[in-house]
Amino acid sequence: MELLKKVMEGIKPVDREMMREARKRADNLTKPPGSLGDLEEIAVRLCGITGSITPDVGKKTVLVMAADNGVCNEGVAAYPQQVTALMAMGMAEGTAGVAVFARLVGADLKVFDLGMKEPVGKIGIINKRIRPGTANMAQGPAMTKGEAVQAIEIGIQAVFDAVDSGYRMVATGEVGIGNTTSASAVLAALEGIDPQETTGRGAGLDDAGLLGKIEVIRKAIAGNKPDPADVLDVISKVGGLDIAGMTGIYLGAAYRRIPVVIDGFISSVAALSAAKLNPLSLEYMFPSHLSAEKGGGPALDRLGLKPCLDLGMRLGEGSGAVLMFYIIEAAAAALVQMKTFEEAGIKKV
Amino acid sequence: MELLKKVMEGIKPVDREMMREARKRADNLTKPPGSLGDLEEIAVRLCGITGSITPDVGKKTVLVMAADNGVCNEGVAAYPQQVTALMAMGMAEGTAGVAVFARLVGADLKVFDLGMKEPVGKIGIINKRIRPGTANMAQGPAMTKGEAVQAIEIGIQAVFDAVDSGYRMVATGEVGIGNTTSASAVLAALEGIDPQETTGRGAGLDDAGLLGKIEVIRKAIAGNKPDPADVLDVISKVGGLDIAGMTGIYLGAAYRRIPVVIDGFISSVAALSAAKLNPLSLEYMFPSHLSAEKGGGPALDRLGLKPCLDLGMRLGEGSGAVLMFYIIEAAAAALVQMKTFEEAGIKKV
Repeated sequence: MELLKKVMEGIKPVDREMMREARKRADNLTKPPGSLGDLEEIAVRLCGITGSITPDVGKKTVLVMAADNGVCNEGVAAYPQQVTALMAMGMAEGTAGVAVFARLVGADLKVFDLGMKEPVGKIGIINKRIRPGTANMAQGPAMTKGEAVQAIEIGIQAVFDAVDSGYRMVATGEVGIGNTTSASAVLAALEGIDPQETTGRGAGLDDAGLLGKIEVIRKAIAGNKPDPADVLDVISKVGGLDIAGMTGIYLGAAYRRIPVVIDGFISSVAALSAAKLNPLSLEYMFPSHLSAEKGGGPALDRLGLKPCLDLGMRLGEGSGAVLMFYIIEAAAAALVQMKTFEEAGIKKV
Repeated sequence: MELLKKVMEGIKPVDREMMREARKRADNLTKPPGSLGDLEEIAVRLCGITGSITPDVGKKTVLVMAADNGVCNEGVAAYPQQVTALMAMGMAEGTAGVAVFARLVGADLKVFDLGMKEPVGKIGIINKRIRPGTANMAQGPAMTKGEAVQAIEIGIQAVFDAVDSGYRMVATGEVGIGNTTSASAVLAALEGIDPQETTGRGAGLDDAGLLGKIEVIRKAIAGNKPDPADVLDVISKVGGLDIAGMTGIYLGAAYRRIPVVIDGFISSVAALSAAKLNPLSLEYMFPSHLSAEKGGGPALDRLGLKPCLDLGMRLGEGSGAVLMFYIIEAAAAALVQMKTFEEAGIKKV
């Protein structure tokens, strides 16, 4: 709780003076004003985040939180829980989607085991196990508040370690069979909306499976009565270790003043959790893609964020966030490497 | 006309058998079926285009067509025509937006002078001058049909040379003050719609400027009476050398069976021209971003294409297309480098 408290109290707004300076440069680059669209907004915010007019975000990593979900006992997922560990191993081996994309864009990938059912003991998977998966939230709280805090602090520490190793941009990722169920539950509980509005087919439920999943979430919320005003209460009762860990990543990135990229639905729910814990953390977040999972759009809407990528993806893992890395790098490169009209000797109209 | 004729008659459909095989692999990768969304469609089509289950699109270049437009005499543009050459030089020097992005994604950039007002004689700008800019289409045809064919063939030859040099993916780009006017005119003429539907503010016209631009386009179409069924007639009467050149790039890419990426509005109009000359060319095209220029969305709609990037960009140059290179590479990498369930030893559900 020490670390979380320190971070929550220590997050500062981005540097608005530097943003003004960056906007001035962006307006004077050799292009019609505003013609780089969102890239200009991204670049300006990068300057505010880093406090530099030449933001350097070239060294980057995706931090993947792996955990299992006890609610799978209710039959809410299309795959057995063992697949979580197999997918995590695929990430460590470099054959999972997020690993392939990370290699392509020159990003590193770190997998943290926050609590998969069984430890896998594989090189490349960092052991931060809190418990062997959450409890079944349809029968009681998914975890204790202390465990949720522990997971958040692992996420915070993961960012701190990354920054200390020279990384200048991070993305959130996750893997965990059943985690669209916990994410849908957290979103519904935090926003006080019916699970029907937040719940999709996950990895591939049919109509009956989807209805069952919604019922399970309703039951979990009714039974646990999470307090919408208390994010830690919500995450511990109906969330997951991965969601908690990613919440920590957003908070840690804001505290250490580096940009953090949101992946899809589950990552967005963690982002919303972080933004509710400290609204200033939102200033350090960048959305990536519009997830095809039902709750993805609504979660980003609640954050007031508009994604740049529309690829119909719903893989999770951090796969969409990693693709956004180079768009953000392009925004920074444009601001730094393009000439202004003055520099190019063109009279501005 | 020889080369254009040969290409028009020689374009073949993509390899559907290879696409079926690719789809089978995509469906068996270690991810929920369809969860990579558009990336799966892109990968499958890449296999159809290249005839390979392991499509290699790593070596790539953006081909920029530079040309001036006589219609600028009517006051349709926010910048003087001299800026065309200055922007082209910025590309050759590596400081223009498209050059910055190309460097970032590891793509090469080639600028072809198809007819800027004055020759610039700069290293990195390839001299393919047909005439010193088009004539003022408000007073008569922009160019002769022979000149339009010449420009198209330069585009075709540019792709042929690129493929012969080992490039496996190209993007279209352009630079030319006044070319949103010619693109709006071509789109309106080809589709028989009022220029008001196709005409935007370009590099930054005010309300009065926009109304004037629309009137000029109406006058050009009324005066030249381009035949909507004859693409060469439309391009030569109310188009531009850059649009003609890019039309050739699309045709050449289809003939040589490599993927070609569409940039924004002007590139999309050229793509539409190519698709009307030979509908099979469409099978080799990939959209990139949704341009903020008014005609951008409508032009892609007419092609039946949905862009993946929504960045509010309207810079042209090929800048958005170059950002799409990475997404297309990611699609190919996923198909080639991810494991199938069988390969990973996971029983598929």
